[in-house]
Amino acid sequence: MAGFEGKMLEVNLSNGNINKTVIDKGVLRKFIGGSGLGAKLMFDRVDPKVDALSPKNELFILCGPVSGTSLPGGARFAVCAKSPLTNMFAESSCGGDFASELRSAGWDGIIVQGASNKPVYLYIEDEKAEVRDASDLWGKGNLEVADLLKARHGGREARVVSIGQSGENLVRYAGVANGRSLAARCGMGAVMGSKKLKAVVVKGSGKIPLAAPEKFSEKRKVLVQKAKDNIVTQVLGMLGTNAAVDVSAVTGDLPGKNWASGDNTAIAAKTGGPVLSGQQFLTGTESCFGCMVGCKRINKITEGPFAGWAGPGPEYEGVVSLGSNLMIDDMAAIIKMNDMCNDFGLDVISAGSAIAMAMECMERGILTTKDTGGIDLKWGNVDAVVKMIPMIARREGLGATLAEGVKRAAQKIGKGASEYAIEVKGLEVPMHDPRAHHGLGLSYATGARGACHTNDPAYTIGSGIFDWPELGLTPLLAAQVKESKVWGTVIKNSQDLGQIINAGVFCYMLGPVMNAGDVTELLAYSSGFDYTFSELVECGERIWHMKRGVSNLMGITAADDKLPKRILTPTTEGAAAGFKIDLELMLKEYYPARGLNPDGRPSKETLNRLGLSDLAAKLY
Amino acid sequence: MAGFEGKMLEVNLSNGNINKTVIDKGVLRKFIGGSGLGAKLMFDRVDPKVDALSPKNELFILCGPVSGTSLPGGARFAVCAKSPLTNMFAESSCGGDFASELRSAGWDGIIVQGASNKPVYLYIEDEKAEVRDASDLWGKGNLEVADLLKARHGGREARVVSIGQSGENLVRYAGVANGRSLAARCGMGAVMGSKKLKAVVVKGSGKIPLAAPEKFSEKRKVLVQKAKDNIVTQVLGMLGTNAAVDVSAVTGDLPGKNWASGDNTAIAAKTGGPVLSGQQFLTGTESCFGCMVGCKRINKITEGPFAGWAGPGPEYEGVVSLGSNLMIDDMAAIIKMNDMCNDFGLDVISAGSAIAMAMECMERGILTTKDTGGIDLKWGNVDAVVKMIPMIARREGLGATLAEGVKRAAQKIGKGASEYAIEVKGLEVPMHDPRAHHGLGLSYATGARGACHTNDPAYTIGSGIFDWPELGLTPLLAAQVKESKVWGTVIKNSQDLGQIINAGVFCYMLGPVMNAGDVTELLAYSSGFDYTFSELVECGERIWHMKRGVSNLMGITAADDKLPKRILTPTTEGAAAGFKIDLELMLKEYYPARGLNPDGRPSKETLNRLGLSDLAAKLY
Repeated sequence: MAGFEGKMLEVNLSNGNINKTVIDKGVLRKFIGGSGLGAKLMFDRVDPKVDALSPKNELFILCGPVSGTSLPGGARFAVCAKSPLTNMFAESSCGGDFASELRSAGWDGIIVQGASNKPVYLYIEDEKAEVRDASDLWGKGNLEVADLLKARHGGREARVVSIGQSGENLVRYAGVANGRSLAARCGMGAVMGSKKLKAVVVKGSGKIPLAAPEKFSEKRKVLVQKAKDNIVTQVLGMLGTNAAVDVSAVTGDLPGKNWASGDNTAIAAKTGGPVLSGQQFLTGTESCFGCMVGCKRINKITEGPFAGWAGPGPEYEGVVSLGSNLMIDDMAAIIKMNDMCNDFGLDVISAGSAIAMAMECMERGILTTKDTGGIDLKWGNVDAVVKMIPMIARREGLGATLAEGVKRAAQKIGKGASEYAIEVKGLEVPMHDPRAHHGLGLSYATGARGACHTNDPAYTIGSGIFDWPELGLTPLLAAQVKESKVWGTVIKNSQDLGQIINAGVFCYMLGPVMNAGDVTELLAYSSGFDYTFSELVECGERIWHMKRGVSNLMGITAADDKLPKRILTPTTEGAAAGFKIDLELMLKEYYPARGLNPDGRPSKETLNRLGLSDLAAKLY
Repeated sequence: MAGFEGKMLEVNLSNGNINKTVIDKGVLRKFIGGSGLGAKLMFDRVDPKVDALSPKNELFILCGPVSGTSLPGGARFAVCAKSPLTNMFAESSCGGDFASELRSAGWDGIIVQGASNKPVYLYIEDEKAEVRDASDLWGKGNLEVADLLKARHGGREARVVSIGQSGENLVRYAGVANGRSLAARCGMGAVMGSKKLKAVVVKGSGKIPLAAPEKFSEKRKVLVQKAKDNIVTQVLGMLGTNAAVDVSAVTGDLPGKNWASGDNTAIAAKTGGPVLSGQQFLTGTESCFGCMVGCKRINKITEGPFAGWAGPGPEYEGVVSLGSNLMIDDMAAIIKMNDMCNDFGLDVISAGSAIAMAMECMERGILTTKDTGGIDLKWGNVDAVVKMIPMIARREGLGATLAEGVKRAAQKIGKGASEYAIEVKGLEVPMHDPRAHHGLGLSYATGARGACHTNDPAYTIGSGIFDWPELGLTPLLAAQVKESKVWGTVIKNSQDLGQIINAGVFCYMLGPVMNAGDVTELLAYSSGFDYTFSELVECGERIWHMKRGVSNLMGITAADDKLPKRILTPTTEGAAAGFKIDLELMLKEYYPARGLNPDGRPSKETLNRLGLSDLAAKLY
């Protein structure tokens, strides 16, 4: 059967062994692919007690059935491992052009075991795979590494994932880059760095295997037309994901000043959609492989200290994390700092959050210029941030502390700094404020990888652009701001859908034009399994519990399902002023709906119903 | 039968007679209401040769079946008359709170004949109507007049339409105000002024008559929920109609520098959605009667020369006409100038366009500071515009020329100024550039009142937010920019739909959440006629031809279906750079689809098919 066959390239960097492993069909059907499969592989293969940065941790680079096809929003792949940031199950994903090439080479994923004792990269050309020396690449940024490897291996056809200096230096929130796109979250780049794996280069000459290519192609055409016709995808093309800044600010969803400021509309006005995509900064747009939405910006800077720079522009998360959350309203600086993070391989959310915490500690006298090596980390100081970013990537001075992530850094700093560490389970909170969408708070508190905006569509369902009546996920904005009721089942269903999306691997940006039928047909035609939507929802449920169970085995309990005090404290200004999240009430509804025991473990009944008795056996 | 009964209050200001006229049921069914009925009344009652500002012109203030109900987007009413600006059929509409009160008083419309020889206002309290002295109100702006009349007549319950100084002074683009909302276009305020009618005050104690109140109420609930759930209406609430600035700029749709500049993204970034609705300027939002979208801004200015001002904020058209089209990027100044226009009663589109033309004439040496009385009308000069607005309203100096509208003003100025008069049939072009949407160019060229953005959804169908498959009006953005084919039938159908909307009278902003079934049911349940959608489409067709025929009788021919040379000339920069509108080709397709003879008159066959043999008899 053509389709998604689970052909894994298994590389052991400790001994240089390279093998081909084919995943069992029953497992594929049940876990779909992407991070769904990643959770299952981690459960099967990785000792939960392992140190995330030790050779015994494994790195999974995983496609799903639609990964790399020419489906709009189908370019994505997942990177999974035990996280050095959260010490639990982790996944991250990105678009770009790597997945299509990997699958053209005949592979649905790569499993990296062990660790090399010197820098290496993995070179894949169809069936052939080799571990090669990367001493000359070590110490270089993502963009240069990709250029060098492409030049060495035949130009544009060679597709590259790599780590920048932050991955080499084991920054706990270093990401894995595929060109301008980063699988940024949870420190997957540090895991890669701990294995001394600088990059993976792939060249493929085959075709993406599809179980029903004609039907898939027909469905793809429908989706392309829907994406062309839909105002949300159109606006994404016009203004990029940064379009969200505009509406986010006026709903109280946009964080500012390390989440202390409730009204950040003034900064939004200077950093929002029309600014980034106006003539001053925009030169063009880009799409991932197979897509036509064009949500990526190509920017230039013509004035000020960064004049002359041109390159890939930021997404929403970068603009906010390096912008309003640092009280920076200088668009040129944000573009430049975002690019620095990408090149060093730093997750912009975590890097921005760490600097925001440091700025607040400075303001409160918890840190002084003695600690910062003289850098004046005050709100809005672009120079200071431009200095801090490389220091984090290189673990220099205060950068070494901030490279640990806000949770560990605050513990190290002490003096009450933890109050200013805005994280859940160690993962820095993404740039949507649950005080404006209470359901999102529950989603953050219980997300499979910690506070996460892409593990379920809890943010987007609220904004009227996600409409999945089959799951009770209809637009809920009106109910968001003031009510903290009825979120239990909604977030449970939203999470189940999120697991399907991230297993697919689909892009959330195409969510507004997809429905249950589309997802079902696309996964069936690509994988070869005759999925129904209800089977997929059961897969989503199973995947969520597998991720949760793996994390439970790694130490997560109900006590970790929480939100930072700052987010539980209402803001005094802005559109969400005064609205207090009742997390306790939401959790009380959520636990039984989710099938969790009060201690935070999946209930035995739930696990047995989902065919996860092996997980139950380990948990109980 | 309760429902829309066409009860007209007929007032003759020459002799003081006041009568009640009930429109024939057959006419109501065929012309629906609003501007549809306005066209029929103009045909039946007004000599096409009449001077628009003479007592023989009649002013029609007309509700439609849904006007004044608590339907979201149902607050609107139409104002119709022969236009002093275009010398042909004209209509204008606005929201606010007047229609609900007028219908509560038992009236579906007001017909004003003749002219008073001294300032008067019309006072209506249920069945009772009186013409009262308005000498003390003459010379005052709309906001003060409304306040005075409300104070005099019992406060908030008294609802007011009025004219400002520009209406008194017969500025050819003076509008009629209902508080902060203006029926701004085509000089209906000048017609009112020519009759010395300063205002109409109405107080009603009855209920809005609905033919099937329960069914209407059910349907209303559905629409309210759809409006709450839809991202377009949500964004309208968040950012106002000014949200359009952001996307308009990046698609090449935003005019700048009197339509000479193709890329106006830099100004858009300083005047777009998030700026107007950010903390610097926004204090709240408002809706028209019965609506919950909240698209109206309440603004404040805290810094600069206008600090201390607070009041109703601008719509998209005002922001662009007084902003990028004048090369002004000062949001505070735009807010203030928009408010000045509203208070004086000037149409912001026409006023801004007249000043833009004057600025271009200054730049080209066609006008000098001698002509302007020393005012330096250069691009971006806020001071100069702030001086010019009152001069136009008061017809002082160059203001007297600009008060004539760009077509007449350019003729008066001479020296080739007409090339910089951006108008169709004498009506200044609204702020969406057809070079980015070629179908919109055809729509402007053939609009029932001249260049118009609210006589058919030609703009919105392109942006993916209007989806009427029954009429072949599906989102067409992809086809917009480069193709000038297949527009004939699309624009014909779009115009037919527009006539239904403006007869209803529905608000275009609710278009994204309404479909054929909704419109049909809402009109049937409100009016009492058992409409089908196909009957309504035939009504739309009939209404369009009645408007066209009336205008033909007033002198319009095929030669008037044109676009300004500037719009037919491609821009050299911006997203629509280089795209040339092939109006000739589009007209060739359009005329037969529309049922027009080559000379621009409706064909006899068309008129007979639509039951307009009386119009045919006058035309042929």
